[in-house]
Amino acid sequence: MQVVDHVRLNEAGDKLVILDQTQLPNRMEYRELETAEEMYEAVKKLRVRGAPCIGIFAGFAMYVLALRFDRSSYPAFAQQFRDAAAHLNASRPTAVNLSWALRRMERVVTERKGVAPAELLPLLRAEAQAILDEDIAMCTAISEHGLSLLKEGDCVLTHCNAGPIATSKYGTAIGPLILGAERGMKLKAFSDETRPLLQGARLTSWELDRAGVDVTLICDNMASMVMKNGWVQFCFVGCDRVAANGDTANKIGTSGVAILAKHYGIPFYVLGPTSTIDLSCATGEDIKIELREPDEIREMWYREPMAPETVKCFNPAFDVTDHSLISGIITEKGICRAPYEKSLAALF
Amino acid sequence: MQVVDHVRLNEAGDKLVILDQTQLPNRMEYRELETAEEMYEAVKKLRVRGAPCIGIFAGFAMYVLALRFDRSSYPAFAQQFRDAAAHLNASRPTAVNLSWALRRMERVVTERKGVAPAELLPLLRAEAQAILDEDIAMCTAISEHGLSLLKEGDCVLTHCNAGPIATSKYGTAIGPLILGAERGMKLKAFSDETRPLLQGARLTSWELDRAGVDVTLICDNMASMVMKNGWVQFCFVGCDRVAANGDTANKIGTSGVAILAKHYGIPFYVLGPTSTIDLSCATGEDIKIELREPDEIREMWYREPMAPETVKCFNPAFDVTDHSLISGIITEKGICRAPYEKSLAALF
Repeated sequence: MQVVDHVRLNEAGDKLVILDQTQLPNRMEYRELETAEEMYEAVKKLRVRGAPCIGIFAGFAMYVLALRFDRSSYPAFAQQFRDAAAHLNASRPTAVNLSWALRRMERVVTERKGVAPAELLPLLRAEAQAILDEDIAMCTAISEHGLSLLKEGDCVLTHCNAGPIATSKYGTAIGPLILGAERGMKLKAFSDETRPLLQGARLTSWELDRAGVDVTLICDNMASMVMKNGWVQFCFVGCDRVAANGDTANKIGTSGVAILAKHYGIPFYVLGPTSTIDLSCATGEDIKIELREPDEIREMWYREPMAPETVKCFNPAFDVTDHSLISGIITEKGICRAPYEKSLAALF
Repeated sequence: MQVVDHVRLNEAGDKLVILDQTQLPNRMEYRELETAEEMYEAVKKLRVRGAPCIGIFAGFAMYVLALRFDRSSYPAFAQQFRDAAAHLNASRPTAVNLSWALRRMERVVTERKGVAPAELLPLLRAEAQAILDEDIAMCTAISEHGLSLLKEGDCVLTHCNAGPIATSKYGTAIGPLILGAERGMKLKAFSDETRPLLQGARLTSWELDRAGVDVTLICDNMASMVMKNGWVQFCFVGCDRVAANGDTANKIGTSGVAILAKHYGIPFYVLGPTSTIDLSCATGEDIKIELREPDEIREMWYREPMAPETVKCFNPAFDVTDHSLISGIITEKGICRAPYEKSLAALF
C-alpha cells in the first residue's frame, strides 16, 4: 500500500512533484518544482521533511535541475552541478541525509570525468531512483521485523512521526502497522500528539488513518491512562541517534513513554535503520540535545499567545531513553536485544 | 502576598468585580457584575473557574443580587433569594462547590424566618466573607504544611492549575511556593503546560511569575527530561477526589508525572483540602472519569485543525494516580502518609 506519494517525478519526467507537508492534515497540496530556488525553498520551509525523505528529495531534485544545465561540455555541466548541489545543501545545514544524498549524486558526475552530459542524465536519474528504492527496501525490512512481534488485534502506542511521509513507503516506527494493515490484519494504534510541534496529530494519525489502521489520537499526558487501561500491547518509536550501549535519542517525550511502558509491563521497541546507530557515541550522555525557540511552546499554532511573554520556557527537541528501558532495537537487519554493546556492534 | 484579586466587591460594596479568567494570560480584564444574567454567564463561560473560587463567587454573587431584591416583606425576599440561587446553580450543574455555597447562603435566609430583609443583608455579606476567609485559612494551612518540606533553592514540578486563581490567596498545589516566595525564599518551579486546555501555560505559570517564583514552562512530555537532569526536588499536584485508600483523581497526566517521579526517586505529593477526600469511595476504581470533546485536542485554541477530522480522539479530563506512587497527601490538617486507609480516616 502506498499511503502517500509525496516525492516523485511528474509524468513527463522533467519536474519534481512534492506533497506540501506544511499544509497537512488540512489540505493535500501538491507542488511542481523545477528551479533551484523552488527546491531550496521547499526544504527550508519544511514542505519536505524527515531525514530519509529529504535525501530522496535531494536525489530527484538534482536530476531535475541537471536537465536544465549546459550540456555543451563536461566542465560546464559539472561546474553547474556542483554549484547547484552546494546551493541546495545550504537550505538545511544540519540535515545529514541532505548532504549525504547530494554527495552521492555528485559522485555520479565527478567519477565520470569527460563523459558527455547527455549520457550522465540517465545515470543521475537511476541514482536518484536507487536512493528511493534502497529506502523502501530498508523500511520494508524494518516493518517486517517489527510486524513479526504483532498479532491480530494488538494495539501499538507511538510517539512523534516516523511514518511514510518522513521516509518512503512504510516508514519505520509505524511501518509494522501499515504493513500489517496491507495484509488485512486488524491492528490498532494510539498516536501521541507530540507537543510542541504536534507531528503525531498532524502527520502520524493522518498516515495511520489513510493506511486503514484503527488509530486514536491522544495528548502526550494521556499515555499513562491508556496503558493502565490495558489498551496498549507495544510501544514503537523511531530514533534520531542510537549510542553504542543502546541509549536512544528521539523526539522529546520518548523517555517518558519508555518509563510508563516499563511501569505497566509493556514492551518498548525502537525502530530505525542501522545508519542511525553511532558506535562512536558510547552512551546517551555523549548526545547533544538541540534546544529550540520558546515560542514553539508559547504561541506557535495558537490564535494568540497561550503563556505570559515573561515566562521562561525550556524547549528541548529530543531526549535520551536509557537502554535499560528498551526491550529491543529493530533495524533492517533484525532485532537487537540487550546487552546492546554486543548486539549493535555485531550489525557492522 | 495577594497574587491576584479575582473575586471581590467593588468599593461601594454593591457590585461584584471579577477578573475574567478566559482572557488570561494576555489581558487582565476586570468585569463588574450586578444582574443575575451576568452572574450566570460568568460561571457558564468559565470567566470564574476553579471549585473553591466558584464557591467564593457564589457567596458574594448572592449578596449583590440580594441588595436588589424586594425588601418589603420576608416572604417576597426569601422567594426571590431561592429563585436566584436556583438560577445560578444551573449555570454549572456539576460544580459541587457552587451548590454547596448557594445552600450555605440560603440557610442564612431560611433559618431566620420573618426577619426583616434589611437585617438579613449584613448577615449575607458576612456569610460570603466567611466562605472566602475560610478558604484563605485552608489554603494557608496547606501551604504551610507543604512549605515545611522545602528548603532554599528547591524546585517543584507541578501539573495543571491549583493556584490562587482557582481558590483564594495562595492556592493549594502551588501554595507552598507562593508562601515561600512571600517569605523571601528562592524557590523554583516547572509548570507542565497541561494539554489539552493548557491551564499550566495560561494560569499556573502566570501566577507563579507574578508571585516571584522562578518558573519555567514545559510541555507535558518534557517532565521526564527535567527530572532526569536532577532539576526537580518535589512534585506537588492538586486533587479533584481522593479515595479512602489514597488513590487520587486529578487532571489527566497526573499519574504519568507520579510514575516518572517514582522512576527518578523524586517525592510526589498531593495537596488539597480534606473536603476532597471521599471515604465513601474505597479505591480509584470507583471514581468515574469524565470524557470530553475530541475537538479540545483537534482544534481548540488553534488557528486551524491540527489533526484530521476523521481521526478518533480519546480525551479524558482526569486520571487516577495509584496510592503506591504518592509520598504524602497534604491537607489543611497536616501531611498524611501510607497506609492511607488509616491516615486519611483519622482526619475525620
